[in-house]
Amino acid sequence: MAPLTVESLNPSFLKVEYAVRGELAIKAEEYRTKLKTPNNGLPFDRVISSNIGNPQQKGLDQPPITFARQLAALMEYPALAELAPGVFPEDVVQRAKQLQEEIGSIGAYSHSQGVPLIREHVAKFIEERDGYPSDPKNIFLTAGASAGVSLFISMLLSTPDSGILIPIPQYPLYTATIAQFAGKPIPYYLDGSAEWNTSLEEIKTALKKADEEGTKPKALVVINPGNPTGALLMEDTQIELIRLCEKYGLVLLADEVYQSNLHSPASHPFTSFKKLVSKLQSSIPLVSFHSISKGVMGECGRRGGYFECTNISPEILALIYKMVSVGLCPPLQGQIAVDTLVRPPKVGEPSYAKWKEETDKIHAALAERTKLMASRLNLLPGVNCVNSPGALYLYPEITLSDKAIAEAKKNGKEPDAFYALQLLDETGICVVPGSGFGQREGTWHYRLTCLCPGVEEYVGKLEKFHNGFIQRYGA
Amino acid sequence: MAPLTVESLNPSFLKVEYAVRGELAIKAEEYRTKLKTPNNGLPFDRVISSNIGNPQQKGLDQPPITFARQLAALMEYPALAELAPGVFPEDVVQRAKQLQEEIGSIGAYSHSQGVPLIREHVAKFIEERDGYPSDPKNIFLTAGASAGVSLFISMLLSTPDSGILIPIPQYPLYTATIAQFAGKPIPYYLDGSAEWNTSLEEIKTALKKADEEGTKPKALVVINPGNPTGALLMEDTQIELIRLCEKYGLVLLADEVYQSNLHSPASHPFTSFKKLVSKLQSSIPLVSFHSISKGVMGECGRRGGYFECTNISPEILALIYKMVSVGLCPPLQGQIAVDTLVRPPKVGEPSYAKWKEETDKIHAALAERTKLMASRLNLLPGVNCVNSPGALYLYPEITLSDKAIAEAKKNGKEPDAFYALQLLDETGICVVPGSGFGQREGTWHYRLTCLCPGVEEYVGKLEKFHNGFIQRYGA
Repeated sequence: MAPLTVESLNPSFLKVEYAVRGELAIKAEEYRTKLKTPNNGLPFDRVISSNIGNPQQKGLDQPPITFARQLAALMEYPALAELAPGVFPEDVVQRAKQLQEEIGSIGAYSHSQGVPLIREHVAKFIEERDGYPSDPKNIFLTAGASAGVSLFISMLLSTPDSGILIPIPQYPLYTATIAQFAGKPIPYYLDGSAEWNTSLEEIKTALKKADEEGTKPKALVVINPGNPTGALLMEDTQIELIRLCEKYGLVLLADEVYQSNLHSPASHPFTSFKKLVSKLQSSIPLVSFHSISKGVMGECGRRGGYFECTNISPEILALIYKMVSVGLCPPLQGQIAVDTLVRPPKVGEPSYAKWKEETDKIHAALAERTKLMASRLNLLPGVNCVNSPGALYLYPEITLSDKAIAEAKKNGKEPDAFYALQLLDETGICVVPGSGFGQREGTWHYRLTCLCPGVEEYVGKLEKFHNGFIQRYGA
Repeated sequence: MAPLTVESLNPSFLKVEYAVRGELAIKAEEYRTKLKTPNNGLPFDRVISSNIGNPQQKGLDQPPITFARQLAALMEYPALAELAPGVFPEDVVQRAKQLQEEIGSIGAYSHSQGVPLIREHVAKFIEERDGYPSDPKNIFLTAGASAGVSLFISMLLSTPDSGILIPIPQYPLYTATIAQFAGKPIPYYLDGSAEWNTSLEEIKTALKKADEEGTKPKALVVINPGNPTGALLMEDTQIELIRLCEKYGLVLLADEVYQSNLHSPASHPFTSFKKLVSKLQSSIPLVSFHSISKGVMGECGRRGGYFECTNISPEILALIYKMVSVGLCPPLQGQIAVDTLVRPPKVGEPSYAKWKEETDKIHAALAERTKLMASRLNLLPGVNCVNSPGALYLYPEITLSDKAIAEAKKNGKEPDAFYALQLLDETGICVVPGSGFGQREGTWHYRLTCLCPGVEEYVGKLEKFHNGFIQRYGA
């Protein structure tokens, strides 16, 4: 018999693209390995992974929140409370005891929807955030936001002509998942000239085009704060989007994983869609996603998150429960971290001071780096960068010369991928080209994270590279 | 606009069934909640969850392996090595240091395929188990075996007429996943009268029937040791199955998660398919799944496992890498536990004695309980139970009277579900009816785990119930 070939596999899989861990990231890993050998001939001494929002990775080393890790360690090995007296603050010991009484061992499968007590805490967090009721029955804990998004997209794509409205640029999880489940993306463009604003007109244009092509829109994806853009939606716009979902019968998928990464909260605050849907008493089906991987916890490796369903019928909740039960349960340490996310230490508790100091420091460093990097990038010829008010990224637009574009084409690369590959080759900095997120035709971008310590050195390398690139290919 | 309805969703989702967490399990949870209220009127004082192989769950309380948890705690909170001197054995401290040097923080995303060093350890474990080479490039760490199985089944179902050969009875992950991705199950029957033997003739009959129905077989699923049957394949049979896959161009999906749950290893040893494929120099594509959830670790809640690809081309490996990268990475604590699974303490190391004592005890208790329960069940009228040589379950056949069957029908239930519901209502014991795993028409079974301590009380309740059921409905 012939061996198994790629052509014999699910054709949808071939169409999946995920640039965040694509060609550049793979090459960066190869460089990282090569750096370990002497006389490797590379013009840099370390690889800087700016391609992915992974705060605790080696080389970035954002420290974990002590409170979260103390609790996690006690959940792993409860005997430590006795074996190491005085090492754990009293509130951590109490919290661990409470969770152990509810859960038993974290080595056991939990309820497939997530530990009931933790879902109660999530509901309470949402109620305090928004001022409107939240029901633990509507909350599902997940292995990161991605798992929930993938479940919903695959559930909503009921026919081959089903489509999902996604912002461009977008986090490529959306295009990847839509491709995997053979649906149709319905792109709507964000406005880079206006702080990556979301415009109702753009969405209506996209809906009109979808209608002409026979694509049936099922849901609207909104990423707020934006990824890769860092933009924050104003309440007026959010209300317009809710009205639009009402009018067109769309499910609103609200990716709100960066809700606590706010660099200018006074001018650019975060308002959840849940709050506005509740306030307006809208009946649109809403699914809101949150995660432990972002914010100040940055606990990407544990795989934890949750989604809350609003205006979703009990029958559909039962269907979702059935589907998640096949995967048994989300990782327990991810669930424990969700509990910490929604229930941080309070004023007066033993762990509060340290928690406050650690989280303040992370917030401040990120806001400062974002601002500094944006202003320095904006000084470069042909670079135009919105100073992100939220999330972990910048998404500068770069003007590329005809010569650079022609050279890229000759190499079989998108022009921004061509730029990013040279950046990696020369400096060891790994970013993701805009073609991985989507952009208006004829414009070029890249996304980089604002997580790197040593901004001076980092931006210095970017500047030197950019000026050299322009010398080679013209402005 | 009309609200979101079940009918508007992906129709494949409606066909998914997963009995292990189905009607009975949901009812058992309701009883568990009800038991907390005084004067609840229930005829039992606790619910015994025999529906799922979840060794560490509350009420079963199989203790975690100390070595595994000490390591996990140090990975969560590395400062403990200094803060709690003397608490951690030296080999645990060294192991944690080595892993921390490789991984950095477990709060960071790892390589999407799993931490390279851990994959090296997995490859070494396989080489030592089988005596044949294994390459870390072919190994993918996963969030439990289920995640890998789901990925492969969805990848192999390339057309609507694609089918997957599955044993009956089977672990319902397989039927659920095939339904989710709109493929066709091709059932082949195991022989309950011959220790749940796998017969080549049965598979050929199934292939013939599939051919007549226009179904194209893509893969053969084998569960060894069996679930729910506990059966172990003999090498001769395994070789026949490999030859069959060669002949029909099938991918062999080998679910080997119970490979270390062996109760009579002398008469019923485990041989991996990887070993035999290597020995025969067969070119069949083979994917072998393993897990931290079973064996003696029973670390279900962490979600960890791996699969090894054999005779799978680099192009397909790249495709798999791309697909898993969209989900970012398996949970880090699951990966750490895989490392422990494949690299337990060795003779002479400080943790060895304790590890040996703990694991011996778990093995012995399981083997003893399985044997005792099977022999007691076999004494009951109308019950016929293979004494499982492996895995965590028994799968007794029960003869049900016409009266019982008629009564079940009247209640809209499968006869074995009717039996299992009454068992739950009367005793608080939750099992899974055979209709959830599949069985020959006109035969009835249920699956129960052999994880419960207090076998006397447990089997006593089963016996009393069964005799009462027969009194009510006749033998």
